[in-house]
Amino acid sequence: MKAPRFTPLVASLPSMVPFVGPETQERATGRKFDARLGANENVFGPSPKAVAAMQAALHDIWMYGDPENYDLKQALAAHHGVAPENIVVGAGIDGLLGSLCRMLVQEGVSVVTSHGAYPTFNFHVAGYGGTLHTVPYVNDAEDPQSLLAKAREVDATLVYIANPDNPMGSWHSAERIQAMIDDLPDTAVLCLDEAYLEFAPEGTAPALDTSKVNVIRMRTFSKAYGMAGARVGYAIGHPELISAFNKVRNHFGMNRAAQAGALAALQDQDYLAQTQANVAAAKERLAAIARANGLTPLPSATNFVTMDCGRDGDFARALVAALVERGIFVRMPFVAPQDRCIRVSAGRSQDLDAFEAALPAALESIR
Amino acid sequence: MKAPRFTPLVASLPSMVPFVGPETQERATGRKFDARLGANENVFGPSPKAVAAMQAALHDIWMYGDPENYDLKQALAAHHGVAPENIVVGAGIDGLLGSLCRMLVQEGVSVVTSHGAYPTFNFHVAGYGGTLHTVPYVNDAEDPQSLLAKAREVDATLVYIANPDNPMGSWHSAERIQAMIDDLPDTAVLCLDEAYLEFAPEGTAPALDTSKVNVIRMRTFSKAYGMAGARVGYAIGHPELISAFNKVRNHFGMNRAAQAGALAALQDQDYLAQTQANVAAAKERLAAIARANGLTPLPSATNFVTMDCGRDGDFARALVAALVERGIFVRMPFVAPQDRCIRVSAGRSQDLDAFEAALPAALESIR
Repeated sequence: MKAPRFTPLVASLPSMVPFVGPETQERATGRKFDARLGANENVFGPSPKAVAAMQAALHDIWMYGDPENYDLKQALAAHHGVAPENIVVGAGIDGLLGSLCRMLVQEGVSVVTSHGAYPTFNFHVAGYGGTLHTVPYVNDAEDPQSLLAKAREVDATLVYIANPDNPMGSWHSAERIQAMIDDLPDTAVLCLDEAYLEFAPEGTAPALDTSKVNVIRMRTFSKAYGMAGARVGYAIGHPELISAFNKVRNHFGMNRAAQAGALAALQDQDYLAQTQANVAAAKERLAAIARANGLTPLPSATNFVTMDCGRDGDFARALVAALVERGIFVRMPFVAPQDRCIRVSAGRSQDLDAFEAALPAALESIR
Repeated sequence: MKAPRFTPLVASLPSMVPFVGPETQERATGRKFDARLGANENVFGPSPKAVAAMQAALHDIWMYGDPENYDLKQALAAHHGVAPENIVVGAGIDGLLGSLCRMLVQEGVSVVTSHGAYPTFNFHVAGYGGTLHTVPYVNDAEDPQSLLAKAREVDATLVYIANPDNPMGSWHSAERIQAMIDDLPDTAVLCLDEAYLEFAPEGTAPALDTSKVNVIRMRTFSKAYGMAGARVGYAIGHPELISAFNKVRNHFGMNRAAQAGALAALQDQDYLAQTQANVAAAKERLAAIARANGLTPLPSATNFVTMDCGRDGDFARALVAALVERGIFVRMPFVAPQDRCIRVSAGRSQDLDAFEAALPAALESIR
């Protein structure tokens, strides 16, 4: 019997997974993690009002969710001072990045990102047959100038930058990102991934300007709003770019309770402020733990602290493995020289206690 | 400023929506529907155990869902007597159809379905640039022989059939579908959409045979399990076909609570049996209401009753509009001669009361 006639592109793709999930590691070790600090999830969780809204929505879960995501889009538009036509809601930034790549990328199309930036973006670019061009990090940060120069060099259709950055936690000022937008070639779309923005200092995001047809800003309820498992992200941009998502998206794909939860989470900005304070305090403690163990915490505008181990990638990989063995789920940058670091998400006291207890023994075991 | 450089395919696509949602209609009329019987949602809702599982999972909603959907796949495999490698979980059958089309369809690829069958499948085929070939319904049913003949004629890569069928409610015996599988050209993949299977009589589904590399069976928690808003579907097939989903799917795209809910729903087969009885009773009453109003209910192996109005498509369209005006959400087949019918989902007593009350006046208003 013949195999299915996959498209040549799909036939050529590896069955890769951008990330191995912590549950997979738990099944492999037969042990639950004591602290889950590896996926930059927000351990402080969502607003109780968001949980209540999702609980209430479960009674209507027999209904498909509104395919227009109307209520959520209205609220997001009001919150950001844009029009609903400037917003598309999707299954997390991951889902929106997939749709964006589908809209812009095919074989022969050049895409630019930083070497070591978000792997799921690269997964989507490869998945649609694009050619990925990368530039190195500069001082542990994605570098707008390098990205733009490369975009011009390869005539890129799509350029990706995250501000703040994952996995390094670094960030640029609004002025520097605005300058990048101003210098962007007309022929390129800039995807500005702001998943961690709510953790960044004031002055990190340039003003929203939905008159630019070639800039799209990605936001999420997975990080500061503590709802990663609900899968709600959104993008903000010019109506021409935003409306094109309707050509390709899974219109009835949004979980109904998740839509209600995101709406309630957005409306509880007091809880968001509390989360921001909790995360800031947790990051301070993480930095102190790092220093007490001879690691150097890097400045972070996110909900994680990237810790420079002062050695090479093999050392950091061994440390991650030693922590995982001890029940602490953490991850690390994939690419040198950033792979000298480990990356630890902010967590509750008990999570940081567990990390603090495990780190010295983990370090000892690999020295 | 230049427009984004959309791919030529995406640039050519209409910003179409496969279905207008009932919420959109409610916003247009400024009135909530009294009965929501148009989307073949299961008004009886999910098992209370599924709701409880989702409620419990909300406390962990800060975590991404398991990207392997391990627990659910294990349970589904045990339930169906197949291996976990034979199962892929996705955001409803809609999401899985999108991935399947992405895997198999590109410009120049022929796809075969029935004229008037599931529009979202057509949306995905168009979205990946395929050429859709259709054959007519025969006796208000999709016709396996015609589909296979057309598949041979156009050298189809993908053939779609739903059994039972939506929008007509008709169905074929397992023997007839098995004969279709047996006669399928090696070069074609058969997508057998069994969204409504749990409502069909015994003997409707051929035995699962995961040794066939070119057959994929689609199932869902949206219909009999009453969880349309949760967005959980799955496909069963040969590991070669199933594993290819990993090349393209949004690995972290599944809502965490939805996964837990689906698992609990699957484990409550007593509740499923109760739903089946409720739906059967509701369909009998719908048939009686139809007859009392001079409409002819068609036999149905689904959770809806398609009612032959005995006139043309314009009449049925007017009737749907008149029902919608009166607060009753129903839909109808798009294509002649099936568009002589309206399609009404099974509902609770109060839903059917509302339909029964509105139907005579709606008919009166258009006669």
